[in-house]
Amino acid sequence: MDRLIEKVIKKDNPTCLGLDPNLEFIPCFIKDKAYKEFGKTLEGAAWAIFEFNKGLIDALYEHIAVVKLQSAYYEMYGIPGIIALDKTLKYAKEKGLYVIFDGKRNDIGTTATAYAKAYIGQTDIDGEKVRAIEADAITVNPYLGSDGIQPFVFEANLNKNAIFVLVKTSNKSSGEFQDLVVEDKFVYEIVAEKVAELSTQSIGRYNYSNVGCVVGATYPEQAKRLRQIMPYTYFLVPGYGAQGGKAEDVAVCFDKNGLGAIVNSSRGIMYAYKKSKFGEEAYQEAAINEVKKMRDEIKQELLRKNTT
Amino acid sequence: MDRLIEKVIKKDNPTCLGLDPNLEFIPCFIKDKAYKEFGKTLEGAAWAIFEFNKGLIDALYEHIAVVKLQSAYYEMYGIPGIIALDKTLKYAKEKGLYVIFDGKRNDIGTTATAYAKAYIGQTDIDGEKVRAIEADAITVNPYLGSDGIQPFVFEANLNKNAIFVLVKTSNKSSGEFQDLVVEDKFVYEIVAEKVAELSTQSIGRYNYSNVGCVVGATYPEQAKRLRQIMPYTYFLVPGYGAQGGKAEDVAVCFDKNGLGAIVNSSRGIMYAYKKSKFGEEAYQEAAINEVKKMRDEIKQELLRKNTT
Repeated sequence: MDRLIEKVIKKDNPTCLGLDPNLEFIPCFIKDKAYKEFGKTLEGAAWAIFEFNKGLIDALYEHIAVVKLQSAYYEMYGIPGIIALDKTLKYAKEKGLYVIFDGKRNDIGTTATAYAKAYIGQTDIDGEKVRAIEADAITVNPYLGSDGIQPFVFEANLNKNAIFVLVKTSNKSSGEFQDLVVEDKFVYEIVAEKVAELSTQSIGRYNYSNVGCVVGATYPEQAKRLRQIMPYTYFLVPGYGAQGGKAEDVAVCFDKNGLGAIVNSSRGIMYAYKKSKFGEEAYQEAAINEVKKMRDEIKQELLRKNTT
Repeated sequence: MDRLIEKVIKKDNPTCLGLDPNLEFIPCFIKDKAYKEFGKTLEGAAWAIFEFNKGLIDALYEHIAVVKLQSAYYEMYGIPGIIALDKTLKYAKEKGLYVIFDGKRNDIGTTATAYAKAYIGQTDIDGEKVRAIEADAITVNPYLGSDGIQPFVFEANLNKNAIFVLVKTSNKSSGEFQDLVVEDKFVYEIVAEKVAELSTQSIGRYNYSNVGCVVGATYPEQAKRLRQIMPYTYFLVPGYGAQGGKAEDVAVCFDKNGLGAIVNSSRGIMYAYKKSKFGEEAYQEAAINEVKKMRDEIKQELLRKNTT
């Protein structure tokens, strides 16, 4: 997690660019070019996705430290889509960005190990160690309990990478199972206690562990409590902007040094050009403006919080 | 789900072949050929995986109705591995098998829709509908609540495919969160009630819904109770054989017609040749024998249960 934190400090920005390339977010001039070359096929979609992602990364890599690739929007375009994910990931890393694979993977024992090796570890091919998909971190769903999480923790620690475990998600019905009350605790608090326990194995020089968590921006009260339960856990906070989360909502996730959380925005940044008067050709400038605006909002709120 | 059930009836076998192609399960003569051609690379591993899967499908397609592909063991071999998954899936379908993509996918709203379209629905490329990965069913993790499950149900019903929602998993620490007690119920029972509710939208001619569930063979007492909570829900039961589940443990998941459940075995079938005296070249015969043995064990137990 130190590697992530150093990048965030260097860019002075806790914003995470979510690359969820639903085709409807992609400017028509890019899609038209793709369809002309490949037709309205999975290959055409994948070409447009990589082209758009590359344009966004080129525009933003000097302003941000982290990107998060939402795997669903690549898997939706089949093998060509997954190849576009891999190319995007490699391109982002070339530009010095920290890359989170947002796949919310989960399974038991040896199968969890296989997922962990796939994204944040090394695959052993009868003695030859190779990397399958080279992410820096992966998101993990905790429903299967600690023998489904521990293999991810193990590979993260072994390979100096990280995981983010879902604790309290940003969606409306996240409470259905996560907010069930067990004696005097919510289920998400019990998950948080487990995450806190797993965190202690790898506390780095900034006092944060390789085991991070996901806490939605849409639940600030819960986030405040979770910050206390998991003092060494970096928060990946989705739900900013389009889903309704605001700067004051996410401020509770940060420590007094402005660390402790990264805040993801996907649609807000990718789709900023739709609100811009310069049209879709100016999608890069629109994204830069949006990222700067988001950074300033969060920084201002953190300043306000620290001085009151 | 009718399509699955018809195939199970026709083959008179509720066994599901789990294709979890960890390289260590694959006979050396196949791997040697792969490494000679492609080296110890992701491509070499992927070639061996597909070759082995194809051999198993060729041997077993007349005896079984269903295969389950555990995505982790393909993702572990990167893009070549995922291509091997796609090829295996297509090959199994050509041979008339029902194919479950075991990816335990989960996310919120539109992202859950993207996953559902990827595996059991259709991807819309500006008006052109194409299939990304052509599975018949997908496994789904419920931690995010109903707005994370409903999109899968919707796509299953729309495309006459199916989903299997994790309720009670087969691993040791599955109880950590699944067995938490909320008032007088376990969390997994509350999840089961939600699954039962979602099931009612699509009950087919055999009285089962497109919404199935996953219940580990290692927890027969819980399975018995879950069968009552979810009367219209087909059970996908992992954990048979290698993980310790026996015929008497899985019998509770079936109805009196011998329907209501499919029982998965991965290692037990793939790795049967290790226990055979004829060596690894005879992996197909060993797999056939194992499948027949497993079928007979389960059928005998169901007969015993129905007559006592």
